[in-house]
Amino acid sequence: MSATTERIAGVLAPVVTPFKPDLSPDPERLVRHTRWLLSQGVGLAVFGTTSEGNSLAVEEKIELLNRLLDAGIDPARMMPGTGSCALPDAVRLTAHATGLGCAGVLMLPPFYYKGVSDEGLFRSFADVIERVGDTRLRIYLYNIPPVSQVPITLPLIERLLKVYPGVVVGAKDSSGDWDNTCAYLDNFAEQGFDVFPGSETFLLQGLRRGAAGCISATANVNPRAIARLFATWQAPDADAQQLQLNQVRDIFARYPMIPALKAAITHYGDDASWAAVRPPLLALTDEQRVLLVNELETAGFAIAGLRAA
Amino acid sequence: MSATTERIAGVLAPVVTPFKPDLSPDPERLVRHTRWLLSQGVGLAVFGTTSEGNSLAVEEKIELLNRLLDAGIDPARMMPGTGSCALPDAVRLTAHATGLGCAGVLMLPPFYYKGVSDEGLFRSFADVIERVGDTRLRIYLYNIPPVSQVPITLPLIERLLKVYPGVVVGAKDSSGDWDNTCAYLDNFAEQGFDVFPGSETFLLQGLRRGAAGCISATANVNPRAIARLFATWQAPDADAQQLQLNQVRDIFARYPMIPALKAAITHYGDDASWAAVRPPLLALTDEQRVLLVNELETAGFAIAGLRAA
Repeated sequence: MSATTERIAGVLAPVVTPFKPDLSPDPERLVRHTRWLLSQGVGLAVFGTTSEGNSLAVEEKIELLNRLLDAGIDPARMMPGTGSCALPDAVRLTAHATGLGCAGVLMLPPFYYKGVSDEGLFRSFADVIERVGDTRLRIYLYNIPPVSQVPITLPLIERLLKVYPGVVVGAKDSSGDWDNTCAYLDNFAEQGFDVFPGSETFLLQGLRRGAAGCISATANVNPRAIARLFATWQAPDADAQQLQLNQVRDIFARYPMIPALKAAITHYGDDASWAAVRPPLLALTDEQRVLLVNELETAGFAIAGLRAA
Repeated sequence: MSATTERIAGVLAPVVTPFKPDLSPDPERLVRHTRWLLSQGVGLAVFGTTSEGNSLAVEEKIELLNRLLDAGIDPARMMPGTGSCALPDAVRLTAHATGLGCAGVLMLPPFYYKGVSDEGLFRSFADVIERVGDTRLRIYLYNIPPVSQVPITLPLIERLLKVYPGVVVGAKDSSGDWDNTCAYLDNFAEQGFDVFPGSETFLLQGLRRGAAGCISATANVNPRAIARLFATWQAPDADAQQLQLNQVRDIFARYPMIPALKAAITHYGDDASWAAVRPPLLALTDEQRVLLVNELETAGFAIAGLRAA
């Protein structure tokens, strides 16, 4: 494995994590799903929020990364989530992912304490960088205040870029706030800071303003269409493509997102095992799943090829 | 070690965790501080919010527990924090603490996802209980919505008490909302559910309403006076004692609490090593520490005996 010099870009799926009946991770199903996602043209942001990444122990994540690599999944297409409340956990997983040759890591700030200072967050990221001590490390900051409740502010990004140029190289913005995504882009994109909106809803307007792609939950089920908009965003039908993406996204957004994605994979992949989530999440009820599939079919949507995956 | 039949009660300190210069935990200093706390009449809620418990990896917490037991600290006086975002982490640490004979565990709900259902939280706690599978397990639910953002509701408690009587046996309420503490007490105390307000500010009114004690950050520095009020709350001077406790608490509450406690221990214990916190927290500045100590001395407060500990 060699260090990647070209940055990862485009559409990434925060890959949903399959569980066995005892709720242990299911590496075989994960490998199959990641292969299918790659075949559809999207990269792999494993261990994100959609992946129930914080519901997994560090050992489980290390084992899953190893299994993916053993199965021949290309680490240059991977951006695992490695942030943690505990510094040693973040260091351990970040070092492992970097050592495997992953394109980068998507790093949450420590998210237990609220109202912490930018100085404290700076030191959190700095400590991980210094302790990992690997020139291949590429960090993407993960801003998801609706969940983490710990925002990544503009002054924090500015300071990290100044002190760790070439290491802190981008961000996923899941604020859901287009103004914040614009602020990230307008302040830092020119310096080579790669901004990924956290939903394909913002893909076209993001690309028009300099975004590097997007990292979106629904890329788990609608990867090819989202990847196509990324590839053809300057084509005349780009706005029409965006509207179609939004239609699918809007359906999933009417349900608890993570269980809904798994329910769709269960249905279109004809594999009931995919429904399981770890608590505190709950799988969709049978009624919810039927409603979801009806809505998707009414909209003319089906996950082509998932069954074969 | 035998299973404790009598429940832990009284005043517990969420024991602050000392770190070495490299930010690894310092077991020797932790043993000394816990010995001193026990000598002052308070129990040990290690790995709480004040302990930076979520800033520690599970392995670090297991190692620290082992070191405390090796040093002869009585597990019947301990209620370690064991909740985690990841089920296997919560199971592993809870099983270890229970196996060591700890009086109980103080359990946060999984706190990454927000807006989760009571059903999902019930399954989280139920899964830990079933997987630990130890009749000695005693769980105290940890309600701290200002930090965790995941409240422990009355219906959730009611259901857990119904399904797991004798296992789910109490709660720490750090909501800061006296009405919520009253609701816990009025609904469940009669069934033997032990409620510990999360601050000594509520100790006297709590005891008058049936609380089992309190678990409070400032018990790290003012243990004897808080324990005295617990022991003598029906004495004529109880209200006067409460006012004195409040005065000390109010001073600490004007600073970031965890760094302020460590700064006080640094000062009164004459041991600069205690100041270190893990990011994202920050140690008090020299100016803040001087101000804090001045305020404490103006109020006639000193941590008696800490230097000798």
